[in-house]
Amino acid sequence: MKELMAVVRSNKVGQTKNALAAAGFPGFTCVPCLGRGKKLMDPGVLKLIMESGELPLTAAGESMTEASRLIPKRLFTIVVEDERVGDCVDVLIAVNSSGHPGDGRIFVLPVGDAYSVRLGEKGGV
Amino acid sequence: MKELMAVVRSNKVGQTKNALAAAGFPGFTCVPCLGRGKKLMDPGVLKLIMESGELPLTAAGESMTEASRLIPKRLFTIVVEDERVGDCVDVLIAVNSSGHPGDGRIFVLPVGDAYSVRLGEKGGV
Amino acid sequence: MKELMAVVRSNKVGQTKNALAAAGFPGFTCVPCLGRGKKLMDPGVLKLIMESGELPLTAAGESMTEASRLIPKRLFTIVVEDERVGDCVDVLIAVNSSGHPGDGRIFVLPVGDAYSVRLGEKGGV
Repeated sequence: MKELMAVVRSNKVGQTKNALAAAGFPGFTCVPCLGRGKKLMDPGVLKLIMESGELPLTAAGESMTEASRLIPKRLFTIVVEDERVGDCVDVLIAVNSSGHPGDGRIFVLPVGDAYSVRLGEKGGV
Repeated sequence: MKELMAVVRSNKVGQTKNALAAAGFPGFTCVPCLGRGKKLMDPGVLKLIMESGELPLTAAGESMTEASRLIPKRLFTIVVEDERVGDCVDVLIAVNSSGHPGDGRIFVLPVGDAYSVRLGEKGGV
Repeated sequence: MKELMAVVRSNKVGQTKNALAAAGFPGFTCVPCLGRGKKLMDPGVLKLIMESGELPLTAAGESMTEASRLIPKRLFTIVVEDERVGDCVDVLIAVNSSGHPGDGRIFVLPVGDAYSVRLGEKGGV
């Protein structure tokens, strides 16, 4: 099994969620986060982001007032079988790639075991 | 060392926290998240969940209005020594298993090194 | 590649962010979380923490009223090349080590692949 950790734009949550479910990846978690990519943010680009509705998290809004700004993103965590990693990556990229910087990144981490809390036993994803 | 990533019901935070501490797992983090298991949510079941007090996160409440709904959950992250993984899984299941769908899942990930920020040195969990 | 998962004090977000960017680690995510270290919290220490401005997350404030209290922290996730793990750990410790309990911990997890969502292709951190 692998954990896919995907950082995507906040306004892509609904589409990402629906695309994952439609492709047979119904189970995942989603957490609001602040994030940055590799480049310092241009004030003009930041203004566009703010105007487009990707607002800062209330609890960390102060971070938006500084030079190396953090942008509100969403962090999806999806655990999948090894042989389905490629398919899941493809789904995430198809929905979230706009061609503009800030589309996000996907990291793949190894997972050992998985347990169902309800059944109290080891199982698949 | 291993990281245990446990997705549990929001209303189980207090019991989970106390059970972990009592069993000798005092260190962990807890993050509110939205999540889904393997099945699409039945409107009647969703109504019961809403009425039971597991309310949507304000920042993502819009997700509750769609078909493949995301449910507010809590994500516990606990790093434990290899030989204590089984005990920690047992504690999490004992507290969180209600026998109903939505009890959550536990994933076990490998961890290489750990550092104490205060001491500035490599150490255990 | 490795994922560095660093739990630090809430009031260190700005300094941590700036230090990471200055040291050539511009890309990361940051999530508010509740956490605990290895010791149960002394009521007097808790009072000091509350007065110092590290307030509880609204959604989980109820956890602050119990004996084994959870403290608001921030969880940084930074993916770095293997050969830069030591440098990144050093940066995190330099900024966040106050010498007092509660400074936080850093865990290092293996990462397999990374993808750029924008480019739709496999790449580095």
